[in-house]
Amino acid sequence: MSDKRIAALIDDLGDIPFSIEPSLVRRRSRDYFWYSQALNEDLAGKRADVVVTPRDEADVVRVAAACARRRVPLTPRGGGTGNYGQSVPLQGGVLLDMSEMTAVEWVRPGVARVQAGARMHVLDETLQPSGQEQRLHPSTKRSATIGGFVAGGSGGVGSVTWGGLREPGNVLAARIISLEETPRAIELRGDAAQKVNRAYGTTGIITALEMPLAPSWEWIDIAVAFDDFAMACEFGLAIALADGIVKKLLTPISWPIPRFFGPFASACPEGKSLLIAMIAKPSLESFKSLLGARAEILHEKPFDESPSETPLYEYTWNHTTLQVLKSDRNVTYQQCLFPHDRLLASVAEMVELFGDEIWHHLEFIRFGGRVTASALPVVRFTSRARLFEIVDIYEKHGVMVANPHVFTLEDGSRHKRADADQLGFKAEVDPFGLLNPGKMRSYVAVRE
Amino acid sequence: MSDKRIAALIDDLGDIPFSIEPSLVRRRSRDYFWYSQALNEDLAGKRADVVVTPRDEADVVRVAAACARRRVPLTPRGGGTGNYGQSVPLQGGVLLDMSEMTAVEWVRPGVARVQAGARMHVLDETLQPSGQEQRLHPSTKRSATIGGFVAGGSGGVGSVTWGGLREPGNVLAARIISLEETPRAIELRGDAAQKVNRAYGTTGIITALEMPLAPSWEWIDIAVAFDDFAMACEFGLAIALADGIVKKLLTPISWPIPRFFGPFASACPEGKSLLIAMIAKPSLESFKSLLGARAEILHEKPFDESPSETPLYEYTWNHTTLQVLKSDRNVTYQQCLFPHDRLLASVAEMVELFGDEIWHHLEFIRFGGRVTASALPVVRFTSRARLFEIVDIYEKHGVMVANPHVFTLEDGSRHKRADADQLGFKAEVDPFGLLNPGKMRSYVAVRE
Repeated sequence: MSDKRIAALIDDLGDIPFSIEPSLVRRRSRDYFWYSQALNEDLAGKRADVVVTPRDEADVVRVAAACARRRVPLTPRGGGTGNYGQSVPLQGGVLLDMSEMTAVEWVRPGVARVQAGARMHVLDETLQPSGQEQRLHPSTKRSATIGGFVAGGSGGVGSVTWGGLREPGNVLAARIISLEETPRAIELRGDAAQKVNRAYGTTGIITALEMPLAPSWEWIDIAVAFDDFAMACEFGLAIALADGIVKKLLTPISWPIPRFFGPFASACPEGKSLLIAMIAKPSLESFKSLLGARAEILHEKPFDESPSETPLYEYTWNHTTLQVLKSDRNVTYQQCLFPHDRLLASVAEMVELFGDEIWHHLEFIRFGGRVTASALPVVRFTSRARLFEIVDIYEKHGVMVANPHVFTLEDGSRHKRADADQLGFKAEVDPFGLLNPGKMRSYVAVRE
Repeated sequence: MSDKRIAALIDDLGDIPFSIEPSLVRRRSRDYFWYSQALNEDLAGKRADVVVTPRDEADVVRVAAACARRRVPLTPRGGGTGNYGQSVPLQGGVLLDMSEMTAVEWVRPGVARVQAGARMHVLDETLQPSGQEQRLHPSTKRSATIGGFVAGGSGGVGSVTWGGLREPGNVLAARIISLEETPRAIELRGDAAQKVNRAYGTTGIITALEMPLAPSWEWIDIAVAFDDFAMACEFGLAIALADGIVKKLLTPISWPIPRFFGPFASACPEGKSLLIAMIAKPSLESFKSLLGARAEILHEKPFDESPSETPLYEYTWNHTTLQVLKSDRNVTYQQCLFPHDRLLASVAEMVELFGDEIWHHLEFIRFGGRVTASALPVVRFTSRARLFEIVDIYEKHGVMVANPHVFTLEDGSRHKRADADQLGFKAEVDPFGLLNPGKMRSYVAVRE
């Protein structure tokens, strides 16, 4: 961006807080893409020109109008915990930092309406007195925002019961601001709310979300040690299929991953695979009754998210990769979805194929109403080419991959294309192609 | 039973309430087995000698001891709403009417412990202030007892979310009294509690149950009219698979069944098939969003179980048969479970095969962690032989049947045998074979 155009844009902002301080702009222009050595190369040095921090929707409208008028790109950012470079501005311009728009508009039985920048762990604290909690959250819950999760995520802790964000009923409504000279506020309800799910903010600036809630149970964090990974998977699947047992997380993890689990590593016996789970207290006895004598319980503790504690979910989903990266920067990961109709066989196949190159762990989830598993296995990095080969091998064996070594929506999706609804909708709300440009690569601006 | 032996037994009862008044004994010796013309013949005239109504567990122990000592059969009875003759005494003796043992021992978050005779609708009223409700109930909830449901049932309203009673976690514990000269109270916890599930009271007299609870949602009763049954099934399956949509009941019903729905029939358009559902209020918009314009909503009303109202679940499960029987006594029903991996194809096959002889309706349920459907189709009665032929035809087409035209546990089960655990356990708790004798026909008394 030319300094002049940015200066003019800043002029348009009036009293809206902004910063061009280089270290802050550099920091806010990054997310957790560095888990991938490929993205770390490809996204190196990409940065915004200015970070703008709207205080309310009126501010968002003003920024959007200014960007449209000046033809300046705008990339929205939540907590910056994505791994696909979701909030990295490829073409400079405005980084719209949503972190100040945190208001909870209302909470009703089963539903909350909140501004997009609300932190997910704060939101759960707010909801607790009503006996409710968010259905789904990423392993980065303590820093993620609800808007970032919906715009950049697909599911997480809770998906073993509720499925992912794309399942009907898991996002009730989204309010967005279009990027036009006269921006419009559009309320997307029901199925239409999916137009913003995992679109990286390319289909409108999300200002508020109406999210369905779950009853909050008294969760128990539990970790069990099994002689081998197959046994951990088999038992995990039995619990995933046990509809009478209330759970929020079911993660089998193969040795040697637990060796990297910081203070928790000392509790993990050498050579054993784990099953990490969150089980509702009234279901704990049933969980143990099914477990019987087949494995040893290593850890059993009421769920505790207070600052001094590490809840077990911070060893699962993509936090597993992070735990290993803390002491070994030469690993990365892969993101995949196993076929539900031959789940354990397919997992065994992948374990067999890759030997020590890939360390496996699964996340049991519901997907389209069926129990299956997604996974973010830890991959020993050798070369960029090998990362793409691994994607190929998974796909050839019938495992779907959302490639985490690319930064476009299309390449990072399971079907290698943008959602048709999202692509069509983008033409309505981002005619100039200024929203997070470069991420939805199949989009061609309808106006110049 | 000889009058002398019964008189001696009555002497043993002390102040425990009992009755030998013939019309009361006759009434209490029956349940809803008359839905089956075959059972109506086979169980005609079967009756107890005396109805005993224990007030507490001490009374139960005293009756059990007396029956053991005098070698008098004992058949426990809850609300008498079973359809397999579960509580019909085949060999006379004591009918143990549990309806006075209704105490709620305690309610905690997620769990209630209650005496076996507690009425299920009363229990839900008791639970409501705590924001909880029973996970599962039969369509006869307004007269059924919790003990009768666990002893004689398999699932019902709620099974679309929680699965059946046999799923781990759906019965937490059962307390039983053995039928011995010195009766023992035995607490069956976890998996062991399954020893009493659908055992018709042959494996001990259930005095108390610890049942897991569900959060109580604000339920909406909804009925939708579709052009044909296949469409109703297809949409019902889509909702059953939508894990983000909270539901308690999903019942597609083919025309002409709705014609028999009493006052509700007038709301049902000629020739149309229905989908009856209970949807949590926060999920209603998502339900409608999926429905779109493909069908007409006939009825949408907050769930209301007050005495003047007919909640929609009273048109589903085996209440469907009852609704038809009210104006046509020449029908009966069938009880079956469709294969989950070719559900709609299998349903279509059965619809095709039987033409007007069978009127179909399904109950979407979870079974073993998978979405499938059970069904209690309305069958036009021609002959006893034909009823058994129909069972055969279903089974030959890969649909499992729990034959409702037989009265033994074995013949009425999907696998045509008694559960091995239940059979083994009976030897421990009913050595003389006096508990509901004749129902577990493969049991041979271990003592005389």
